[in-house]
Amino acid sequence: MSLLTVGTVAFDDIQTPYGHAEKVIGGACTYISWAASYFIKDIRLTSIVGADFPKEEIAELAARGVSMEGLKVIEDGKTFFWAGKYHENMNQRDTITTDLNVLDDFDPELPESYKDSQYIMLGNLTPDIQIRVMEQLPSTKLIVLDTMNFWMDIAMDRLKEAIAKVDVLTINDEEARQLSGEYSLVKAAEQIFKMGPKYLIIKKGEHGAMLMSPDKTFYCPALPLAEVKDPTGAGDTFAGGFMGYIAKTGDISFEGMKKAVVYGSAMASFCVEEFSLGKMKTLTQQDIDRRIQRFVDLTSFSI
Amino acid sequence: MSLLTVGTVAFDDIQTPYGHAEKVIGGACTYISWAASYFIKDIRLTSIVGADFPKEEIAELAARGVSMEGLKVIEDGKTFFWAGKYHENMNQRDTITTDLNVLDDFDPELPESYKDSQYIMLGNLTPDIQIRVMEQLPSTKLIVLDTMNFWMDIAMDRLKEAIAKVDVLTINDEEARQLSGEYSLVKAAEQIFKMGPKYLIIKKGEHGAMLMSPDKTFYCPALPLAEVKDPTGAGDTFAGGFMGYIAKTGDISFEGMKKAVVYGSAMASFCVEEFSLGKMKTLTQQDIDRRIQRFVDLTSFSI
Repeated sequence: MSLLTVGTVAFDDIQTPYGHAEKVIGGACTYISWAASYFIKDIRLTSIVGADFPKEEIAELAARGVSMEGLKVIEDGKTFFWAGKYHENMNQRDTITTDLNVLDDFDPELPESYKDSQYIMLGNLTPDIQIRVMEQLPSTKLIVLDTMNFWMDIAMDRLKEAIAKVDVLTINDEEARQLSGEYSLVKAAEQIFKMGPKYLIIKKGEHGAMLMSPDKTFYCPALPLAEVKDPTGAGDTFAGGFMGYIAKTGDISFEGMKKAVVYGSAMASFCVEEFSLGKMKTLTQQDIDRRIQRFVDLTSFSI
Repeated sequence: MSLLTVGTVAFDDIQTPYGHAEKVIGGACTYISWAASYFIKDIRLTSIVGADFPKEEIAELAARGVSMEGLKVIEDGKTFFWAGKYHENMNQRDTITTDLNVLDDFDPELPESYKDSQYIMLGNLTPDIQIRVMEQLPSTKLIVLDTMNFWMDIAMDRLKEAIAKVDVLTINDEEARQLSGEYSLVKAAEQIFKMGPKYLIIKKGEHGAMLMSPDKTFYCPALPLAEVKDPTGAGDTFAGGFMGYIAKTGDISFEGMKKAVVYGSAMASFCVEEFSLGKMKTLTQQDIDRRIQRFVDLTSFSI
């Protein structure tokens, strides 16, 4: 099965109570692709960087089976840069700097070899770009779109056009409330289903994630961790694990998606344990299997 | 099995976005006892009210098998009164009025018939009273103590004396952080286990509840609801359902407590659907069974 990943590839500068990581590798598409690479090999990355982006980082992803044909490298450009600071409550962060750089002109034209992609993970980007990518894909099995409050603030109409075209929307709880105008997440989901998506994933950070369809809900808690060093990329890593598992199995039933949510949650729980991709580059199948078992232990009961 | 319940019996005045309930029945011990009464009959209530408290409310609880021998009625006194207002985010509330009234002189002396109680649910009250009750109980099977940040602010040392004597502590996530000085709930639990309790239940409101022992964790999400009309008493109702189920089964293993957490969560999900005890007085066994099945559906997956 083929997975198309779209989003930023970036440099991050991250401050948390556990330390300061300067100019480390980040970006939604990076986290998505790394997480998905533990499940399938046919991943097709779509992004843009400047000449300053390390060639060895590109080579590492390529070595994991990620096609880099859709990575545009702008020779006289600089890579997207984000700097942020987290406080003790890791659910909140302040953005210190956002330098769009090459991202400002990103207008992805998919390589011919990408156009038969079946599973599509659209990382957080302008709705314009997300729509532009979808228009180039004639036959997909599942399109998942991630977005954020920023686009609701400045481009709600265009965002709703994008949302109307997707199968699954992933947002956090506050964004679900903003998008729907409803405080109750049950009512918020009802409104969001009217916008087009068949499934909704509400990410709740340290409280877990909910998968909803018009008639079913599944709640996967987050694994309680002794140390969360850096939450950056957790949502993208969740999406990468979720979509990697679905692309691997081809199971887009609600039961299949429930399992994918658990795999996504497990991958996200690794992500936050180190800065940047520190943990995401080092996992073994045994690490993942053991972590999945911890989710089983955390949630199972018999009445 | 016998369950001793201790806490306030009160009048509440509650404002939420769904309405205003004036001078309705409230109090931790009331909610605990009503919830537990769906599981066992030998419940022994310990509280204090004024002559203004309705006799028919006392009769209703007595009719459910709750002993009122430990309810002190002060003929020339007024019942404890609390007024509060919830905003759209039902996790937060402002206290408008707290009139202690008869509670100011509450010094519970347990009736002889209560002293062989095996399961003890100490609702939120001054640590002094909680300790005084425990000192009158020679042989218990499980003592559960609920408390709140207010006592951490003004009586932390005495509260720690109380906590040292109990088997299970129930608090919310912010209180676990305040009590332990640790932000991570995993680290907070480690500190709290050093204070004495063998089990910790962290209540997370709309995000559910976690049961922790030094080597195990179980997470039960809250049921997503379309309408939360009044969160007052949800934590007490959880405690009542939890302890009612344990007193019924006598199973104080971790597996047994997991089930009790699910029953407690189910009872709390009913509580918030109406003001005051509106829903808690009307449940059938079928209502409870169906709600439990919704928790099974919400959380179950197979890998």
